[in-house]
Amino acid sequence: MLLSKSFVPILKNNPSEAKIKSHQLMLRVGMIKQASAGIYSWLPLGFKIMKKIEEIVRQEQNKIGAQEILMPTIQSSEIWKESGRYEDYGEEMLRIKDRQNREMLYGPTNEEQVTEIFRSSLKSYKSLPQLLYHIQWKFRDEIRPRFGIMRGREFYMKDAYSFDVSDEEAFYSYNKFFLSYLRTFKRLALTAIPMAADTGPIGGNLSHEFIILAETGESKIFTDKRIFELNNHDIELEKNSLQQMRKKYEQYYSVTDEKFDKEEFEKVVSEENRLITKGIEVGHIFYFGDKYSKPMGASVDLPGGKKDFVKMGSYGIGVSRLVGAIIEAKFDDSDEIMKWPLSVAPYDISLIPMINKNDTSALDKAININKELIKHNIDALIDDTEENFSSKIKKMNLIGSPYQIIIGKKSDGDLLEFKEIGEATQNLSLNKIIEIIKKQKNSN
Amino acid sequence: MLLSKSFVPILKNNPSEAKIKSHQLMLRVGMIKQASAGIYSWLPLGFKIMKKIEEIVRQEQNKIGAQEILMPTIQSSEIWKESGRYEDYGEEMLRIKDRQNREMLYGPTNEEQVTEIFRSSLKSYKSLPQLLYHIQWKFRDEIRPRFGIMRGREFYMKDAYSFDVSDEEAFYSYNKFFLSYLRTFKRLALTAIPMAADTGPIGGNLSHEFIILAETGESKIFTDKRIFELNNHDIELEKNSLQQMRKKYEQYYSVTDEKFDKEEFEKVVSEENRLITKGIEVGHIFYFGDKYSKPMGASVDLPGGKKDFVKMGSYGIGVSRLVGAIIEAKFDDSDEIMKWPLSVAPYDISLIPMINKNDTSALDKAININKELIKHNIDALIDDTEENFSSKIKKMNLIGSPYQIIIGKKSDGDLLEFKEIGEATQNLSLNKIIEIIKKQKNSN
Repeated sequence: MLLSKSFVPILKNNPSEAKIKSHQLMLRVGMIKQASAGIYSWLPLGFKIMKKIEEIVRQEQNKIGAQEILMPTIQSSEIWKESGRYEDYGEEMLRIKDRQNREMLYGPTNEEQVTEIFRSSLKSYKSLPQLLYHIQWKFRDEIRPRFGIMRGREFYMKDAYSFDVSDEEAFYSYNKFFLSYLRTFKRLALTAIPMAADTGPIGGNLSHEFIILAETGESKIFTDKRIFELNNHDIELEKNSLQQMRKKYEQYYSVTDEKFDKEEFEKVVSEENRLITKGIEVGHIFYFGDKYSKPMGASVDLPGGKKDFVKMGSYGIGVSRLVGAIIEAKFDDSDEIMKWPLSVAPYDISLIPMINKNDTSALDKAININKELIKHNIDALIDDTEENFSSKIKKMNLIGSPYQIIIGKKSDGDLLEFKEIGEATQNLSLNKIIEIIKKQKNSN
Repeated sequence: MLLSKSFVPILKNNPSEAKIKSHQLMLRVGMIKQASAGIYSWLPLGFKIMKKIEEIVRQEQNKIGAQEILMPTIQSSEIWKESGRYEDYGEEMLRIKDRQNREMLYGPTNEEQVTEIFRSSLKSYKSLPQLLYHIQWKFRDEIRPRFGIMRGREFYMKDAYSFDVSDEEAFYSYNKFFLSYLRTFKRLALTAIPMAADTGPIGGNLSHEFIILAETGESKIFTDKRIFELNNHDIELEKNSLQQMRKKYEQYYSVTDEKFDKEEFEKVVSEENRLITKGIEVGHIFYFGDKYSKPMGASVDLPGGKKDFVKMGSYGIGVSRLVGAIIEAKFDDSDEIMKWPLSVAPYDISLIPMINKNDTSALDKAININKELIKHNIDALIDDTEENFSSKIKKMNLIGSPYQIIIGKKSDGDLLEFKEIGEATQNLSLNKIIEIIKKQKNSN
């Protein structure tokens, strides 16, 4: 893609309204554009990143056997009255009257809607477990939307729901999502730590937040730092293995401030292992049993002829928020260098030719290199503008494709000036560069 | 996928509320579930089809150089007041007040929003042309929503917008989308005919609807039937070639009733070529020049130092509606046989083993066949229920995977009972079956 033809409106300076680095960078390189308070349009650069994140989230949901559906954004108030949350939810719920004066709302979450789908579709324990998810826009009418898409009003979220016949089976479903979340965040090059959390308006008595460390985070966290060294390479999608995984994580103290207990923290975590810092919530899972199935009458026939309310959990990942969270975790704003993980980078590589009015040979070379890259499914952004070299480099460091090829006037012969952002330049053949990028791609 | 584990709630009979065959079939095989009047949830079967349609639409937009963005569903009323459409749009616009009492709305279309993005991002003719599209949920508060997702209130649509420096360049953009639409519908195995149309609330003076023939269509159409024989194999993405294509289509009379002129029709179309029938609109393209750019002040600097308002067009495809439109075009409801085009089929093939309580050998065989199919990226649905054979066949004929393998008790040896829905059974080896399906997949 030629930069001059792409819709990437870049600002010279950081916009003054943006207070945190993700919001600054996203406006600066034209990833998003504010439509109104807390509501954003996604321009091509931001859109590409969000779609790649969405696809990774989707793949990891499918791997645990969850099936994708899509519920509408506009819901009827009736099901919320059945569950009792219509009044509880307060002003964050965007309430709407349609032309027939019916009470509708823009869904802030979907427990009611999915319970309604379940109860009118399945009746037998034989159909369980069911894991359903969707990736859809939600709306929460925050009184003070801020930090760009990190705390916007209209946001893109994956929410999943599990339906089981018993608590034991439901915990198995819960643990599948627990594993799926660890795997998802790892593929986004994030270290997200599961922390015991309050359940808030979703309800229930078991809940984990997945939190990544970031100075700008809104959650205060208290952990045993050894939890960061855990891995889940050897976990299988099987009951016992998943239970072992949960135990492994739960041996270390790890909570947000809502659940913090100073005395316990100091008792169970030795001083050198205590970590008190801030983080960003990127996922949240809940087990709430029959909290919705009971008032809404979602039951199944059991083997013996009895009926019981189905046991449910819900599992959210903030897809649009993750774009900002990755920036908060990876953007070095003092050096103004962003390096996207290759798995979600807007482009795999930037080609930066030095162009003068009378000499476009470097651009021609870039275009030829691009032809070769396309054959290998490597997606390149070519900076074909006539800006000076240093401002080009600066711009490409902000856009953040993880690799760069710099094509100066003197760059003859087979070796190219190649660098991974933030690393030293190497002189490599195009074949070697292709090999490096493909290898990195395959590892994800 | 095992049918018993999938979320495909099948009804025994056609639901009485559904009046047309797409609505009947979609409810019957659990593709959708009504959430409230004119608002639907998409269950796994329907969702898979819609996603495949979306992906084909996306690929064909990308091929003409359009860039994907994503605008929000909730818009501010302010930009609609600038364009003058806020009052004009009437009650079909879902108007919303947020908690701060600001006037918002659920976007029924995006001309204003995209014009706002353009005017605040680009200033020079050098950045033109720009073709931007997004695929997003829209809402039109129909007074009488009906026909399921064919005329629902919340619907999924691809809408694109072109920005050019002159009428001539704008017609070039218009023709790119014209070609892209012909190609898109062809990949969906639909014959969609471009017809001169009124511009309605979008405005402008040049417009085509793309219409497929269907008895249940809401549009009455009048055409010269020779237009159905045209093809676009030899069209290139280049000004003259595209102009020739437009001329080729426009030599034949072809309009909807809004534009119909009896005298002209009978004058230019000889009696044997006249076709008066009904159709379904699946796409609509508009050229409207500066209708939005002028009141909203979206101008660019021209080469000589002057400024001019940018020339715009818009281009819509109803993605969710296409699911229904394909059913209307392809479903044989007297024989109850649906055959999805392979390009968008929910599954490539159905495996139908005959299962008794004491003999699951046919199921085991189906599972082994499936393992082999997975290696070749062929997606199969296995009917592992214990229903009788004829009701299994009936069900699979409704679900509509284009191919079936029937595995009876006697089915020993290497040859399998294979059929393309609606065709005769053939005895073929699995390798041969795989070859047939892969060949068909690659042709799309």
